[in-house]
Amino acid sequence: MEYCFGADIGGTTVKIGLFSTDGILLEKWEIPTRKERQGAYVLGDVAAELFRKMEERGIAKEDILGVGLDAPGPVGTDGVIQGCVNMGWGVFNLVETFQKLSEFSFIKAGNDAKVAALGEYWKGIGGGKGTMVLVTLGTGIGGGIVLDGKVLMGTNGAAGEIGHLVVNPEEIEVCNCGKRGCLEQIASATGIVRTAKRFLEQKDTPSLLREVTELSAKDVLDGAKAGDALADEIVEYVCKYLGMGLANVSCVVDTDRIVIGGGVSKAGVFLLDKIKKYYKVFAFLPCRIKKIELAKLGNDAGLYGCAKMILEEEK
Amino acid sequence: MEYCFGADIGGTTVKIGLFSTDGILLEKWEIPTRKERQGAYVLGDVAAELFRKMEERGIAKEDILGVGLDAPGPVGTDGVIQGCVNMGWGVFNLVETFQKLSEFSFIKAGNDAKVAALGEYWKGIGGGKGTMVLVTLGTGIGGGIVLDGKVLMGTNGAAGEIGHLVVNPEEIEVCNCGKRGCLEQIASATGIVRTAKRFLEQKDTPSLLREVTELSAKDVLDGAKAGDALADEIVEYVCKYLGMGLANVSCVVDTDRIVIGGGVSKAGVFLLDKIKKYYKVFAFLPCRIKKIELAKLGNDAGLYGCAKMILEEEK
Repeated sequence: MEYCFGADIGGTTVKIGLFSTDGILLEKWEIPTRKERQGAYVLGDVAAELFRKMEERGIAKEDILGVGLDAPGPVGTDGVIQGCVNMGWGVFNLVETFQKLSEFSFIKAGNDAKVAALGEYWKGIGGGKGTMVLVTLGTGIGGGIVLDGKVLMGTNGAAGEIGHLVVNPEEIEVCNCGKRGCLEQIASATGIVRTAKRFLEQKDTPSLLREVTELSAKDVLDGAKAGDALADEIVEYVCKYLGMGLANVSCVVDTDRIVIGGGVSKAGVFLLDKIKKYYKVFAFLPCRIKKIELAKLGNDAGLYGCAKMILEEEK
Repeated sequence: MEYCFGADIGGTTVKIGLFSTDGILLEKWEIPTRKERQGAYVLGDVAAELFRKMEERGIAKEDILGVGLDAPGPVGTDGVIQGCVNMGWGVFNLVETFQKLSEFSFIKAGNDAKVAALGEYWKGIGGGKGTMVLVTLGTGIGGGIVLDGKVLMGTNGAAGEIGHLVVNPEEIEVCNCGKRGCLEQIASATGIVRTAKRFLEQKDTPSLLREVTELSAKDVLDGAKAGDALADEIVEYVCKYLGMGLANVSCVVDTDRIVIGGGVSKAGVFLLDKIKKYYKVFAFLPCRIKKIELAKLGNDAGLYGCAKMILEEEK
């Protein structure tokens, strides 16, 4: 039997998966991401962990087809990552560096949101065919576009960067990316909190949110679900811009489906229905009827995508 | 020697081109578009014209590889056009209908903006490789995205419909498409006139534009070039939204180049420089440096694209 590994490198943990080459996730586990010395230990820790697992299971190196990696930064097709703020990484070649550390010969690497889109397309809601956009509503907003099995990379690796669509040209605050008016400033987990704080300041409406000391996106969404009027107003505002952003994505790529993932999407159908409502308002007539669905794989999407990068070369 | 025909069907004229199968445009000419009886005569006129030309040149039917058609409406890969307001056409299969009328066996059809993008990519500024977006600033705004030689169609044929990106969610007037706040409402030829009229009404600034009886987009652009302060303010406003729209397109597909065509683009480098200025303001950092260029083929882009649809099947 042959295997491959996936390693989804995040700011807090590295998720690792062992797959059979027919695409079955046999085992998954996590190790902490050591951020000391600008993340210098991260890749070595991953390599050591893979060897530990191979020893534990009695798997020989020649039975490992390859290792797929992803990380939260822009990764080129050459394997070069253009820095990664979460880990303290600068610009370096992720594939070559991991190759030296692990001596595995077949390694692929990609941006976490794009790799998650590939995973969700392959083994999740995507059904493995057609075209799909995944938008990941987490601390930030990531995205990936899959066209007939291939992730659209873009000349500068920026295809599918839905979080940085400008949706409010009048915005005065600056986004993490350096410009103003990005969707991420409104509709990511941190964007929802930021939007909520603005609403709480500018309005007198009574709200249970006023009593929360450290407001989270979940508090706002739970409040709206529970019928808190101001919380609902905030979620409507957020979904208006999400709907508009996704309608604009459809005017550019018009995929078979749009899939909503990431931590914020745990608000489920409640959130989905509001996004759909505004999508319809802003969508170009021919693509007004569109499958807009919740992601199915949750945190495993990245792992599956990592494996797929290795296995797609197989066929 | 073998040949193919291209026929670019517009609301006023049908442009026809005779090509050699190595992609050389041998001759081009126009016939009027007969709009009587909901455009019932248009396709028959085109077929008759092709036969006339073949007789004139002594070309046998078996030496015609095929005929590529385009029209200003959404055309599916099956050849079905979803209506065409300019011509009075309803929904019908353009390929099958033209096949019956002409008895040519190999016919392809596409949307005019998408076909023009293919033509500009193949023989114009696109250089025939990589990825490209063409935005056509005409009476409306059309667009087409070419990824490695293939036009991106979209599930509903709506990929590349850049004119219907929502750029102003606060807009109250309705676009031709039925929704509000589309880029086309601001930056098409008619959009520029509409924007200019708003500015002229709302502001007291003296302007030569106030003396023009039937204002055109060209008047506004010429006024701005000549140093009319209000005309320049209008063009800046238009280019702000164009720059923002195109920056958003880059966040989705991040192509090698963005190409500006259509009648409005005749304003040339003056317009291009203003679009580039605002593109940089709104673009996501990794794609801030981008080739933004003027189209080269002008009105011939559609003809070349029609020919390419036939010839690409060749190779």
